[in-house]
Amino acid sequence: MGNYDETLKDIEATMGSVPGYMKALTEDVLMQEWPLMKKYVFGESIIPAKYREMIGLAVAANTRCPYCTMFHTGAAQLNGATDEEIQEIYFLASFTGRWSSMLFAQQYDMEKFAEEFHAVGAHLSK
Amino acid sequence: MGNYDETLKDIEATMGSVPGYMKALTEDVLMQEWPLMKKYVFGESIIPAKYREMIGLAVAANTRCPYCTMFHTGAAQLNGATDEEIQEIYFLASFTGRWSSMLFAQQYDMEKFAEEFHAVGAHLSK
Amino acid sequence: MGNYDETLKDIEATMGSVPGYMKALTEDVLMQEWPLMKKYVFGESIIPAKYREMIGLAVAANTRCPYCTMFHTGAAQLNGATDEEIQEIYFLASFTGRWSSMLFAQQYDMEKFAEEFHAVGAHLSK
Amino acid sequence: MGNYDETLKDIEATMGSVPGYMKALTEDVLMQEWPLMKKYVFGESIIPAKYREMIGLAVAANTRCPYCTMFHTGAAQLNGATDEEIQEIYFLASFTGRWSSMLFAQQYDMEKFAEEFHAVGAHLSK
Amino acid sequence: MGNYDETLKDIEATMGSVPGYMKALTEDVLMQEWPLMKKYVFGESIIPAKYREMIGLAVAANTRCPYCTMFHTGAAQLNGATDEEIQEIYFLASFTGRWSSMLFAQQYDMEKFAEEFHAVGAHLSK
Amino acid sequence: MGNYDETLKDIEATMGSVPGYMKALTEDVLMQEWPLMKKYVFGESIIPAKYREMIGLAVAANTRCPYCTMFHTGAAQLNGATDEEIQEIYFLASFTGRWSSMLFAQQYDMEKFAEEFHAVGAHLSK
Repeated sequence: MGNYDETLKDIEATMGSVPGYMKALTEDVLMQEWPLMKKYVFGESIIPAKYREMIGLAVAANTRCPYCTMFHTGAAQLNGATDEEIQEIYFLASFTGRWSSMLFAQQYDMEKFAEEFHAVGAHLSK
Repeated sequence: MGNYDETLKDIEATMGSVPGYMKALTEDVLMQEWPLMKKYVFGESIIPAKYREMIGLAVAANTRCPYCTMFHTGAAQLNGATDEEIQEIYFLASFTGRWSSMLFAQQYDMEKFAEEFHAVGAHLSK
Repeated sequence: MGNYDETLKDIEATMGSVPGYMKALTEDVLMQEWPLMKKYVFGESIIPAKYREMIGLAVAANTRCPYCTMFHTGAAQLNGATDEEIQEIYFLASFTGRWSSMLFAQQYDMEKFAEEFHAVGAHLSK
Repeated sequence: MGNYDETLKDIEATMGSVPGYMKALTEDVLMQEWPLMKKYVFGESIIPAKYREMIGLAVAANTRCPYCTMFHTGAAQLNGATDEEIQEIYFLASFTGRWSSMLFAQQYDMEKFAEEFHAVGAHLSK
Repeated sequence: MGNYDETLKDIEATMGSVPGYMKALTEDVLMQEWPLMKKYVFGESIIPAKYREMIGLAVAANTRCPYCTMFHTGAAQLNGATDEEIQEIYFLASFTGRWSSMLFAQQYDMEKFAEEFHAVGAHLSK
Repeated sequence: MGNYDETLKDIEATMGSVPGYMKALTEDVLMQEWPLMKKYVFGESIIPAKYREMIGLAVAANTRCPYCTMFHTGAAQLNGATDEEIQEIYFLASFTGRWSSMLFAQQYDMEKFAEEFHAVGAHLSK
């Protein structure tokens, strides 16, 4: 693992200060988590930052996490997400869970689901 | 607490035998849980058995629990739930969660929600 | 899809006004969601309104959604749910999840669960 | 609402056949859900299809839904998601939930969180 | 089941008074739940009280339950949990869920997972 | 961040081989996650390994994750957890969630909950 003081300095340089919920973590946990947050919140990866944050918002709406909905909405906007894009997330956040509930309620056979799913793929590839 | 052997006998008399997942619990836990299961699965309470089981199915579909969807679907049918009623649960199981996700994604103000909700109540009571 | 303005008018006629969390949705989403809410909250289906709302309350207590517990409790009461019925939901809301956790903690064999479950059904049908 | 037979024909034209889990729904539910699925799975919206499906995969991984992880992974690939993009989702799917758990475990003060979050925004906008 | 008045007296003797959320439950539910709470919160079992409460805190952080994070943090501290132990829970609360999300996102084959897991066990036992 | 090849070698030395679900992650994610897994699964921290794994099992039972229940049960046993300790987890895994559901179903006032909770603390400290 790295150096805790360097981690704190890097957070401060990136975020302006070290939030209390980061200081509250053990040193080893923060040292391991920070590089991932630095890259996947403040840096670049294959998926553009705007979409990463919209993914985060949709997940947050499903885990019913008020910290996370605030964080990802704000970060999405800082990365250029428009009101129209955020508005689409309102629905997309509910889309997977609604079908999941409708499928579990049916105790739908997994193999039948897979077969039907692959048949759709084959149909679309024609 | 009661007597463990009496609990086992009562389960056997009610269910035909004691399922492995009940035998696996500590004695005190089974003694406390069984009377609630006896009443709320096999007995009578204010809410009719059929609706109790349909409630269970909707919850199970949200907690993504295959044991529970099997149990509550079967128990609902034993208590007279029709295919049409079960079919409505497919949707109802998804209804609360979809709006929950759409509200959390909006970080919707709780006080505004409460105000609007009470206004609907007042409107309906006119 | 239908007409957005007609949807807004229909919501207003039914609920007294259009809540902010509905206006915040995209037009197509609201047009598709509203007829389901109109029927399954304000209208009639096979499952009586009172039980539909108690199902919603039990689900809401499991998804830990404060908007939804407020909504479904109030709507259940508007549809005639008594304090005693609501009180039973406090328990029923916890019933499925507690056994789900106890079964998952045991990594209980799904096939054994199914066998035992069907044996109970056979026992009860004697 | 629309016409059920037209809905079935439209599904068949789009997907090749009507999956069993759609036929199992009540007519009104399928008529309302299908136009949203048609647009947000098979059609165009503001968020590109590839990202919509990656959002779905991240949500599915959090709701622990095997139907949904299969569906959204396959649909993401059909829409051009590369292995590298999917691989990033493995992490992003875990990113929001891990911080959510670390914040809830701390009972972190929501107002302090909001203040610190807005300070980061101000810092980044300098 | 036992006697409701005795249950209330026992709660009062143990906790000082009967919290409103206990009074709100049906008599039979409280009579069955209380002995389990008495033993597993205020009494002794095989797992030491301090660890039972830290388990509760980790679960509470995953179910995003503010009542429960307050309860289990306070109860852990009353039973001697140090700040350093609680701090470790911040991470441990996030540990299981993060890998769960990364595995579900991969649709990882359960049998392959089991094989690999048992191989690790064999390696460690050498 | 560290060196990916060293990470792979360290995993191999510790676990015997690198599981497929680890190889599937991006290099940066595995490099950051592995030191935490090495310490909190295979190494020492303030909380003894046996209890860390029982915490993991209780969380896994709540997130309904079959990978995780297998992993944490096996790891708990490798670290000396007895059948009786694991058996207690069956109940403890269900304990937090059941009260969470009963409290959310009551829309229990958070401030009243906090007051009552602190009164219990004061009572116990007499």
